[in-house]
Amino acid sequence: MSLIVQKYGGSSVGTPDRILNVARRILQAQRTGNQVVAVVSAMSGVTDNLIKLAGQVAPQPTEREMDVLLATGEQTTIALTAMAINGLGGRAVSLTGAQAGIVTDGVHTKAKIANITPRRIHTFLDARSIVIVAGFQGESLEGQITTLGRGGSDLTAIALAAAIKADLCQIFTDVDGVYTCDPRIVRNARKIPEISYDEMLEMASLGSKVMQARSVEFAKKFRVIFEVRSSFNDQPGTLVKEETAGMEKVVIRGVSVDRKQAKVTISHVPDKPGIASRIFSEIAAINVNVDMIVQNVSASGTTDISFTTLADELPKIEKHLGPIVEEIGAKGFSAQGGIAKLSVVGIGMRSHSGVAAKMFELLGKADINIQMISTSEIKISVIVDEARVDEGANIVHAGFGLNV
Amino acid sequence: MSLIVQKYGGSSVGTPDRILNVARRILQAQRTGNQVVAVVSAMSGVTDNLIKLAGQVAPQPTEREMDVLLATGEQTTIALTAMAINGLGGRAVSLTGAQAGIVTDGVHTKAKIANITPRRIHTFLDARSIVIVAGFQGESLEGQITTLGRGGSDLTAIALAAAIKADLCQIFTDVDGVYTCDPRIVRNARKIPEISYDEMLEMASLGSKVMQARSVEFAKKFRVIFEVRSSFNDQPGTLVKEETAGMEKVVIRGVSVDRKQAKVTISHVPDKPGIASRIFSEIAAINVNVDMIVQNVSASGTTDISFTTLADELPKIEKHLGPIVEEIGAKGFSAQGGIAKLSVVGIGMRSHSGVAAKMFELLGKADINIQMISTSEIKISVIVDEARVDEGANIVHAGFGLNV
Repeated sequence: MSLIVQKYGGSSVGTPDRILNVARRILQAQRTGNQVVAVVSAMSGVTDNLIKLAGQVAPQPTEREMDVLLATGEQTTIALTAMAINGLGGRAVSLTGAQAGIVTDGVHTKAKIANITPRRIHTFLDARSIVIVAGFQGESLEGQITTLGRGGSDLTAIALAAAIKADLCQIFTDVDGVYTCDPRIVRNARKIPEISYDEMLEMASLGSKVMQARSVEFAKKFRVIFEVRSSFNDQPGTLVKEETAGMEKVVIRGVSVDRKQAKVTISHVPDKPGIASRIFSEIAAINVNVDMIVQNVSASGTTDISFTTLADELPKIEKHLGPIVEEIGAKGFSAQGGIAKLSVVGIGMRSHSGVAAKMFELLGKADINIQMISTSEIKISVIVDEARVDEGANIVHAGFGLNV
Repeated sequence: MSLIVQKYGGSSVGTPDRILNVARRILQAQRTGNQVVAVVSAMSGVTDNLIKLAGQVAPQPTEREMDVLLATGEQTTIALTAMAINGLGGRAVSLTGAQAGIVTDGVHTKAKIANITPRRIHTFLDARSIVIVAGFQGESLEGQITTLGRGGSDLTAIALAAAIKADLCQIFTDVDGVYTCDPRIVRNARKIPEISYDEMLEMASLGSKVMQARSVEFAKKFRVIFEVRSSFNDQPGTLVKEETAGMEKVVIRGVSVDRKQAKVTISHVPDKPGIASRIFSEIAAINVNVDMIVQNVSASGTTDISFTTLADELPKIEKHLGPIVEEIGAKGFSAQGGIAKLSVVGIGMRSHSGVAAKMFELLGKADINIQMISTSEIKISVIVDEARVDEGANIVHAGFGLNV
């Protein structure tokens, strides 16, 4: 008998009918001989409605109270899901985050899980019950209701799986796995059967928004094997786990595209120690998130520093960067949208040389100009014209043998 | 400085605007020099929606899960109310029933309060915070979420007032007090400034549905003085308290009308010990709530037994009473709707004789026929034709000097 943690997101439990489907799926998992703990999110739309309601009574709602309010969303779903299972002849109990023993720090709206005391979960499992746990929420040591912030339900599932030493954690969502590329961009994209935590992390941060990075990091830290799969069909999904020897045989696991990027170049920056730190702490102070940073070798006592950010940030940059540039004694800056980031990810590139060269060659042959380059151990990212990024993704996807 | 418990019902917090009004009212109470604990209900309509949602996932939802589900209603209101107060420049925190230390037995959907540990409430009050507590809910000793059933928020307020030794408990509702009669029936009805617990109990059970009897009983037991008043204006309401010497001077405190009653008579019942018990336990078994019971002196070895019930119960009675009648050896039964109960209530009648006689005389003069009579120490009820009960109420109200 295996112990399984399942997690169902907001769209999977978005209507009473869908909750009934989820209930059947959970029962099925139990009837095939498993103990099941299911983590559920708020029904889709509910959290947004609660936030709207809050805005109608207070311009800036207290974060402590926001947590009390938002926690009702998942509490509603756990009750409905447990009822549905009981109504179908099964046996289920619901537990709020606090009841499930999920203890967090006291940072409201973005609490971190401090530890989990799954005593009550085990008691109910031992009594042959299915346990439905509210995702996204916990309780601080002081007994306050807390929420874990965006992607919190995934985190609840992974952390619970670690705490109760589950054999498997299944993340049910509205996509049926992680693909070699977004199928809307590359028609020949394939579902990836197995992926390492590190690759998943790079895929996630690069725009394959299946899961928040911190959930994957948590899973990596506690070696929780999890599967990303669809709650709307019975296809196997993508298994995320520690890397195995076999994984390295595949050079590139996937191709990732981030659109709506912008590139900012500060020109003739005095080439002296501490200057980059000053620039980017000033930029952090105006709340602009910087992604890639590129600085070339200095030629004549000054250098150009470029960085990328979301195109949405351009107005803020145009408003605030002038004084910063002046203060550090640079000549000026240019900011430009209309670009995109194309990345290839794979732990295999560690043992295969020439991956970057091959990527550049593929793009060069198609006459797609590379404006910036940034690399890490297991990914290579380039900035290209947004109008040509889809074409580039298809070429790279095919060139690295990822097509079906 | 006084310590006040306020309670706001579902219609008082029915919209964001109304929640803001309630927030202002609570702040006002604090700013005039009081410590304030406010108990709030679910926004009107929310509980019904949750029950509907439950019905869509399970034909007979588990009661444990129903409690988890319904408890979200009040949790939403406490968060919004606390936010609203904070947004208006005040300082408030919300507490769920469990967080407020309200411990109940484990009977889901109709739990009884076992005890209250208001440690956390005192901590927040001491820190000059207003405390907003979720009505209607608690936590069992086993840590399960429970709800108190209908009228539960009033009970929460009264019980909290007792536990924290509040100076006053104010029940804000959509009526502005207890009246000598329903003003829709008797135009000259007056608001009663003070009423004893016992009178309030009789008024409540007789149809002045301001509060559930068990809340009043709880207040009586723990000597909690409470005021019933409107959340939509600033008029003083009705103070409910232990009876004082002065109260007895008023013979009749109020007149109460219950419409839609039905009268059932079982004829020629064998007059032997245990027969009434058998009849009414059989009737209880078919889930019919009996109100008045009248049995006349036996004449010839048999007797007639009559009782009243709600007219809604008539189909059930017509379906099931036949076999019962047969089984006990009675001759038959007749059931009839279209009647109403008219009652006068007042602790003063204990020390004033002739109240019943005067009531009968008033009705007799108006040619209103009395079909049944039932009396207790502080009330007299008669059954009359439903078509004439309003007229009777006006006559009795005027006759006992209650008119404005």
